[in-house]
Amino acid sequence: MTDQPLIDLLKKLTLEEKIGQLLQLAAPFFEGTGTDGQITGPMASMGITEDIVKHTGSVLGLSGAKETIAAQQAHMKKNRLGIPLLVMADIIHGYKTIFPVPLAIGCSWDMEAAERSAEIAAAEASAAGVHVTFSPMVDLVRDPRWGRVMETTGEDAYLNGEFARAFVRGYQGKDLKHDLTRLAACVKHFAAYGAGEGGRDYNTVDMSERQMREYYLPAYQAALDEGAELVMTAFNTVDGIPAAGNKRLMRDLLRQEWGFQGVVISDWGAVKEMIPHGVAADEAEAACKAMLAGVDIEMMTTCYENHLKELVESGEIEEALIDEAVLRILQLKQKLGLFDRPFRGADPDRERDIVMSAEHRQAAREIATKSCVLLKNDSVLPLNREQKVAVIGPFAQNGDILGPWSWLGSKDETVQLIDGLKSKTDASRILTAEGSGIETVTEEQLEEALRTARHADVIVLALGEHSDMSGEAGSRADIRLPQAQLKLTARLKAAGKPMVAVLFNGRPLDLHGIYDVADAVLEAWYPGTEGGAAVADLLYGDRNPSGRLTMSFPFAVGQVPVYYNHFNTGRPQGVPDAQVRYVSQYLDIPNEPLYPFGYGLGYTTFGYSNPAISSGVMTVDQPLTVTVHVTNTGSVAGEEVVQLYVRDLSGEVVRPVKELKDFRKIKLQPGETQEVSFQLTEEQLRYHHADLAFASDAGKFSVFVGANSRDVQELEFRLDK
Amino acid sequence: MTDQPLIDLLKKLTLEEKIGQLLQLAAPFFEGTGTDGQITGPMASMGITEDIVKHTGSVLGLSGAKETIAAQQAHMKKNRLGIPLLVMADIIHGYKTIFPVPLAIGCSWDMEAAERSAEIAAAEASAAGVHVTFSPMVDLVRDPRWGRVMETTGEDAYLNGEFARAFVRGYQGKDLKHDLTRLAACVKHFAAYGAGEGGRDYNTVDMSERQMREYYLPAYQAALDEGAELVMTAFNTVDGIPAAGNKRLMRDLLRQEWGFQGVVISDWGAVKEMIPHGVAADEAEAACKAMLAGVDIEMMTTCYENHLKELVESGEIEEALIDEAVLRILQLKQKLGLFDRPFRGADPDRERDIVMSAEHRQAAREIATKSCVLLKNDSVLPLNREQKVAVIGPFAQNGDILGPWSWLGSKDETVQLIDGLKSKTDASRILTAEGSGIETVTEEQLEEALRTARHADVIVLALGEHSDMSGEAGSRADIRLPQAQLKLTARLKAAGKPMVAVLFNGRPLDLHGIYDVADAVLEAWYPGTEGGAAVADLLYGDRNPSGRLTMSFPFAVGQVPVYYNHFNTGRPQGVPDAQVRYVSQYLDIPNEPLYPFGYGLGYTTFGYSNPAISSGVMTVDQPLTVTVHVTNTGSVAGEEVVQLYVRDLSGEVVRPVKELKDFRKIKLQPGETQEVSFQLTEEQLRYHHADLAFASDAGKFSVFVGANSRDVQELEFRLDK
Repeated sequence: MTDQPLIDLLKKLTLEEKIGQLLQLAAPFFEGTGTDGQITGPMASMGITEDIVKHTGSVLGLSGAKETIAAQQAHMKKNRLGIPLLVMADIIHGYKTIFPVPLAIGCSWDMEAAERSAEIAAAEASAAGVHVTFSPMVDLVRDPRWGRVMETTGEDAYLNGEFARAFVRGYQGKDLKHDLTRLAACVKHFAAYGAGEGGRDYNTVDMSERQMREYYLPAYQAALDEGAELVMTAFNTVDGIPAAGNKRLMRDLLRQEWGFQGVVISDWGAVKEMIPHGVAADEAEAACKAMLAGVDIEMMTTCYENHLKELVESGEIEEALIDEAVLRILQLKQKLGLFDRPFRGADPDRERDIVMSAEHRQAAREIATKSCVLLKNDSVLPLNREQKVAVIGPFAQNGDILGPWSWLGSKDETVQLIDGLKSKTDASRILTAEGSGIETVTEEQLEEALRTARHADVIVLALGEHSDMSGEAGSRADIRLPQAQLKLTARLKAAGKPMVAVLFNGRPLDLHGIYDVADAVLEAWYPGTEGGAAVADLLYGDRNPSGRLTMSFPFAVGQVPVYYNHFNTGRPQGVPDAQVRYVSQYLDIPNEPLYPFGYGLGYTTFGYSNPAISSGVMTVDQPLTVTVHVTNTGSVAGEEVVQLYVRDLSGEVVRPVKELKDFRKIKLQPGETQEVSFQLTEEQLRYHHADLAFASDAGKFSVFVGANSRDVQELEFRLDK
Repeated sequence: MTDQPLIDLLKKLTLEEKIGQLLQLAAPFFEGTGTDGQITGPMASMGITEDIVKHTGSVLGLSGAKETIAAQQAHMKKNRLGIPLLVMADIIHGYKTIFPVPLAIGCSWDMEAAERSAEIAAAEASAAGVHVTFSPMVDLVRDPRWGRVMETTGEDAYLNGEFARAFVRGYQGKDLKHDLTRLAACVKHFAAYGAGEGGRDYNTVDMSERQMREYYLPAYQAALDEGAELVMTAFNTVDGIPAAGNKRLMRDLLRQEWGFQGVVISDWGAVKEMIPHGVAADEAEAACKAMLAGVDIEMMTTCYENHLKELVESGEIEEALIDEAVLRILQLKQKLGLFDRPFRGADPDRERDIVMSAEHRQAAREIATKSCVLLKNDSVLPLNREQKVAVIGPFAQNGDILGPWSWLGSKDETVQLIDGLKSKTDASRILTAEGSGIETVTEEQLEEALRTARHADVIVLALGEHSDMSGEAGSRADIRLPQAQLKLTARLKAAGKPMVAVLFNGRPLDLHGIYDVADAVLEAWYPGTEGGAAVADLLYGDRNPSGRLTMSFPFAVGQVPVYYNHFNTGRPQGVPDAQVRYVSQYLDIPNEPLYPFGYGLGYTTFGYSNPAISSGVMTVDQPLTVTVHVTNTGSVAGEEVVQLYVRDLSGEVVRPVKELKDFRKIKLQPGETQEVSFQLTEEQLRYHHADLAFASDAGKFSVFVGANSRDVQELEFRLDK
């Protein structure tokens, strides 16, 4: 494919028209949408005229086959050269059929599941006329105070990278131009948005370049390597400069060093936010910095629209820079086939057929069962169908289990927990009581709950955070469940009945007051449209829980950040012992999280034996094979995530105490043993040195195999170079 | 002074003798000390022979005129060339006359007080035969979980630098060689030890180089600029490499860029700790890395002693490097006059006369009154002498108010709070009850406390942390007072009496349960030997509290890190309003600390008026003058710390919302007004740019004057360049 037709098109555009291509506005600005382009209220104050809208290159937050077709038709009619709009939207974990939140999907350790969820999201959204999704979000996270941890797959760079690839494959497929059921993927937020200070959204990020390259950048790079078409900038500063104006990050690293040729889009308002950040005195300076840094599309502010022309005229910006940005946008439109089929996949019939289809709902249910993590089970689960179950708590009958970023998801069409449970047994065996609200509780609620519990054989306590308590701008300084629910939990203990806590929430929580009171704890996250059905599948043992945490559950918020791949320090704690003072520890709590990375239970148990390594010495040409025998030592079939970690015992730069290098999710029948085999190469031992060179160090290494980052068996080898 | 005699001496030394100079051992290894050089227990396992000890260059933790003289005599007799030992010790906030902890001294904002405290510490310690103190510690801190925040002066780079200078002046005086009442100062911990992740001592530090240069390095540099003779390395990693083996930090930055020519000493065991850190496979590699990085003295491990010789022989280390290190140590000995007077200031008579002299105790009391910070006062304080006072709580009668790092301080010779109070009024008016232990409480204690309180007119509740709860390795994940004391506080409220909480502790605390219950709160920190007397001076109004916080008091641990000179972000909170979701905030607590940097009350009030600036435009040659009228609007004389902050509204790199640039501590009589004037120069507006260049940016600035970092008046100016 040659770009000549696009270059010819570019040449026909006036400077104003080019600048228009760089602008992205929300749906209400456009004719054919719900508001039919009648701009009122705060939007009116943006100074957007009809003349500006007709030049605009892309729209966000628009969907629905009919509406997108109407908007596109109207737009192409007004646009002098009939250039179609790009339609973008936040399709994060499903379009209308909502899948578990990404952090939950991460806990599946199942790349096919992740890919399938993205594929279905793309199919539904593309039928509804969407072209680009602002997903995957692959920000590495270590601070559960941040509400947006629900949107990533966790704290590990390697695993995040694998998921990034899976999501990109699922969204984009293999032929974006001809496969109209796919979307272009926009990886975000470049870079290191997950490391905001204090876990407060949009807050300052500061870290060494080495740390950023080692831990924070790999997942973005993986998404691009898999072909993600767009990159979205982060809201935060990177080394003191907001990402949207960070030339070193965008031009030098992303474009030059990594060779990214796709579209860079700002996050909502992020170009203009350089003013409050304090690196631009006004909109003109913000526009200038963003363009020099390499931002192609400005989302929802008009610094480009209002100032790029004068910047070109004054010579501060070369028009060639603008041409490059416009060409990238036109190329994306061409890649999506919009010049040939401006409505692309938008199709009211297809939309009606596939959106929320039985097949999609079934997939959502399937993936949700893989995403829940069983944290504790003192012989209470699975339930049996003869038991009388008291399902109590604010999430017993609550459709708010879709989680943030499910704007088209419908709570009314969501399977609530109580419905899931009732589908498993005679409905008369399912009793219920409110117990408490999410943040409030009355004495009457508590008493009613206790009465209900006393009539049952087992309590299923459905607790959690309402979905606004996480997600964007959903930072919490206290990461326990609200007091009302802790009170309910404590009170129900008096019923003397086995108690299963099922948690619906968006972040790792401090589970004190839950895990130490309940007999079983199932972390269901926000499980999506089929959440209640999936959780019921697990509670009744029709499915065996197989999720494993991809983010540590802190012992307390005062321990944050806590993550598995930390450094050893010069004074490691060793065996915790308050008598040994001068080691790196807290006086009042352990160093270890309550539940570590990789952790999760099921209804069977697995034994690890015969860990072995093919040689004590690795060379660049001679990889090693690490094997271990895994046996299902329980009485039901189950899935296990066998994990491989490595530690470089002495590097030029300090290396983590463990780093995930590989894993296998295997299914074993009771009594069955499987030899799991990993190949380990010198390439997997490379890291960023003091001079940022990516290389390995000769010397001793440990390799660990096991069920999670804590429970492992250790072997040793030497790398000779 | 020529170094020729030292060079000649150096030439006479064998390689073993040279390496011996690089070793520092604790006092018990040496003849003449308490143990008389009989090494037993864990020390024996270090493999230190008598032969090694006699070559050793320095000793730590040795003091007492008689003992140091005996040890020096014995050592010089054994040492082939009679080279005297350097005697070093941790004289952190006083030798035996203990001053408030450094964080408290920081709250005085009084450089003369800081200098005087160091001068007295030096006088006492030098009479006791000490030559070098491991002070000042000038690590910038933002995380109150870290126990060692008590040892620094706070969260501000500029203020820490001023205090660093004051302490160095106090310790070293003007003529270290001839003024035998002084000590050489060792600034620590180079670098950025205060930024350990999660506030856990010894933990990983990671930050951008720009952040380090901008905030963390200036105070070390200030101490060196003031002439500090030694630098101690930090325990932590800096950009992934432990400080003790960090060539870039020590050789490139400290020695080459800054031109430091003094002695670099490792912290206790830090050279060998490169092995657990994971950058050295064994002691030999640790020795090699430390020497290449530029560590002259290895404290308490023997990597140098056991391996430097073989490293020289194998060619991995040039002997010239060792020669340089030895020469620096010999130069320090010469600077201290040890070749002429090996016992230096050690003098049993002088020691007896001045250690804990009335004059020194009076100075300690004076400085303690300046260091306490009155956080709240709802018309309860000052007490009057007619009131019956119930002094209740674990610190009512407790000598544990010296704080960590007061190894020679005597709790028995410390003025307890109850004694201070009794000295102010008829002792019969001072009632007391235990109330609780520090971490335990019984129902009987609570009842007795309540009975006692009911007999009084006012309650003085003496609460705090035992000194092991802060200091080195004293990290806490929960920064509230222990539950026992919160329970006592809540219970005493039932007495219905005015309640004054006096806090003895080493870190900013989450004061919920205290500040919202008590009518007045006085943060006394660990006030030292005269603590009870000084606090009584303040409570009875004989002194007017004038301390101002130099570290923010968090609203909750989940808000950490919280510090005044943060960035604005692209989405600042503005007026807190939970309805405006998409701004940088927590859902559950404010962004602001409970008490901000610079905050503190007294028994009078101050009004600020007529803030003015000499011009709206600053140039490089034309500084500005900022003036404000400050009036004592109350009825007693009082001191105010008038603070000047600046904000660069638009830089190449984001600048903090406020940066302290200057301050004046002034004393005003009731009704008196003083014009306070600050000169502001272009130099004060410089910062580290993206390329690390230190320069200012032309453009708009805000300048703020006020009583603390929150309550200010704002003016604007422009910098033209």
